[in-house]
Amino acid sequence: MPRFFVNDTEEFGKTAVIRGRDAEHIRVLRLRPGEAMTICDGRGTDYRCRLVRSDKDEAEAEILEVVPCPGEPSVKVRIFCGLPKGDKTDYIIQKCVEAGASEIVFFDSERVIQRTDGVSKKLERWNRISEEAAKQSGRGIIPTVSWMPGFGQMLKEATECDSALFMYETGKRKALSEALKDAKELNTAAIITGPEGGFEPSEAEAARQTGAHICSMGARILRCETAPVVALTSLMFASGNLE
Amino acid sequence: MPRFFVNDTEEFGKTAVIRGRDAEHIRVLRLRPGEAMTICDGRGTDYRCRLVRSDKDEAEAEILEVVPCPGEPSVKVRIFCGLPKGDKTDYIIQKCVEAGASEIVFFDSERVIQRTDGVSKKLERWNRISEEAAKQSGRGIIPTVSWMPGFGQMLKEATECDSALFMYETGKRKALSEALKDAKELNTAAIITGPEGGFEPSEAEAARQTGAHICSMGARILRCETAPVVALTSLMFASGNLE
Repeated sequence: MPRFFVNDTEEFGKTAVIRGRDAEHIRVLRLRPGEAMTICDGRGTDYRCRLVRSDKDEAEAEILEVVPCPGEPSVKVRIFCGLPKGDKTDYIIQKCVEAGASEIVFFDSERVIQRTDGVSKKLERWNRISEEAAKQSGRGIIPTVSWMPGFGQMLKEATECDSALFMYETGKRKALSEALKDAKELNTAAIITGPEGGFEPSEAEAARQTGAHICSMGARILRCETAPVVALTSLMFASGNLE
Repeated sequence: MPRFFVNDTEEFGKTAVIRGRDAEHIRVLRLRPGEAMTICDGRGTDYRCRLVRSDKDEAEAEILEVVPCPGEPSVKVRIFCGLPKGDKTDYIIQKCVEAGASEIVFFDSERVIQRTDGVSKKLERWNRISEEAAKQSGRGIIPTVSWMPGFGQMLKEATECDSALFMYETGKRKALSEALKDAKELNTAAIITGPEGGFEPSEAEAARQTGAHICSMGARILRCETAPVVALTSLMFASGNLE
C-alpha cells in the first residue's frame, strides 16, 4: 500500500488534505479515488485512508482508521558508524532503516579515511535515502541521518542509551548474545561500528571506560557497511522485533 | 592477514607451493618473505604460513600450523533466493558469504521479473564475487553460487536440510524466533526468500506441504535483497555463530 509522511496532521478531521511534493507523488503514482493509502505522521501513528480526490497541488483522503504503526520496533536503536568511503553510507542508511533503526549518525574517528570536509553537503541526500527506505519498508518514523565530528561526543550520546554496543575486532570482548541477553527489556540502545580500518585500541578503551559493552560478532570479518546491519538485525531478533 | 584458497593441498609438506593466479596475487599484494599469510583448502582447513619466496609464477610458504578455519559456522546454511533484477544478486552473494552462508542458489518462480535466459553466463562472475567475499571475511570454504530453474526441485532440496525456513509476507506464519528455537541443534538449514514481488499463495502452500516452516520477519517490509541477509543473520545469532 502506498505510504506518505505528512508532518502537519493537526488539521486532520474525518479527511486528510495533502499538499506539495506528496500531492505530486500521489498524482505520479496514478492513485485513483477509492484506492487505499496510508498517511503517517512521522511520529509512529498511521492514518489508514481512502483517496477522495487528487490534483496537481492537493489531494484529499478519507480517514478510515488511526493506529500505531505496526512497523515500529519496541526498542529505539541509534546507529553510530565511523564515516566510510564513497556510497557505503547510502547502503548503511537504506538497510538500517529497513531493519528498524531509529536514527543513523556518522562520526569521525582515528581511522576514517573518507574526507570529512564535504559531509554537510551530503546530509540532504542521506535524509532523502532514509525517507525513501522508511516509506518502502512501512516505518512509522523517518529516521534522521546526521554527522557528528567528535568521537567523545558520540560516545557520550551512545552511552546515554539503556545499552551501548561497541563492535570491536580484537582483545577481550563480550559475545553479542551475552550483551543482548536482556534485549527484550531495552527501550533504547546504541550500536557503534568503525570505519574501514576499525577502531584504535585507545578508542575501544575509551568506549569501555564510558560504559559501552565491547562486543564480538564472531570470527568472520564483516565489512564496515555490513557490520551495523548484522548487529542491528541481531538486536531486533533478540528483542522480539522480527516476529 | 592475506588469505588464499588453494584446491590442491595434497602436495603440502612442511611448505606449500602456490601457482597460477594466487601466485600472481601474492606478487601484486607485494607480500615479502617472512610475512604471515593463510592458505585455505576450501574445505574448512586453514594452513597458517610464512612466505618464503614469491615470483611471477610461483610462491612458497612455510607451514606453521594447520587448524580448522575459525570463520566457519557450526551450521551449514543454504540460501535460496528468487532471482532478483539487476545487480541485487551481487549484493546478496557478497553479504550472505560474509554472514556465513554455505551456498547460494538463485531460482525461478512465478513472480520473477528478471529475464532468466542469460543466467548461465553470469555464474562465473557470481562465483568470483563469492570467492572475493570468502577471502575478505575469513571463510574456510568458497560458497558455491548456482542457478536452479525449477521451483519444485528447489523446495525438494531445501527441505532435505534439518530445517527449511520459507519467508512469506502474509497469512498464517511462524515467528522467526519460534522457527529458530532449536537453532543450536541444526547441522543444516535452508533459507528461502522470494523475488521483488514475493511468492504466489500457491507457492507458499507448496512449501508448507513439502515441510518448510512458513516464517514472518515482522511488520517491516524488507527488500528482496535484504531479506536473505536478515534471515541468515538471525539464524547465525540464534545458533550461537555470532560470538
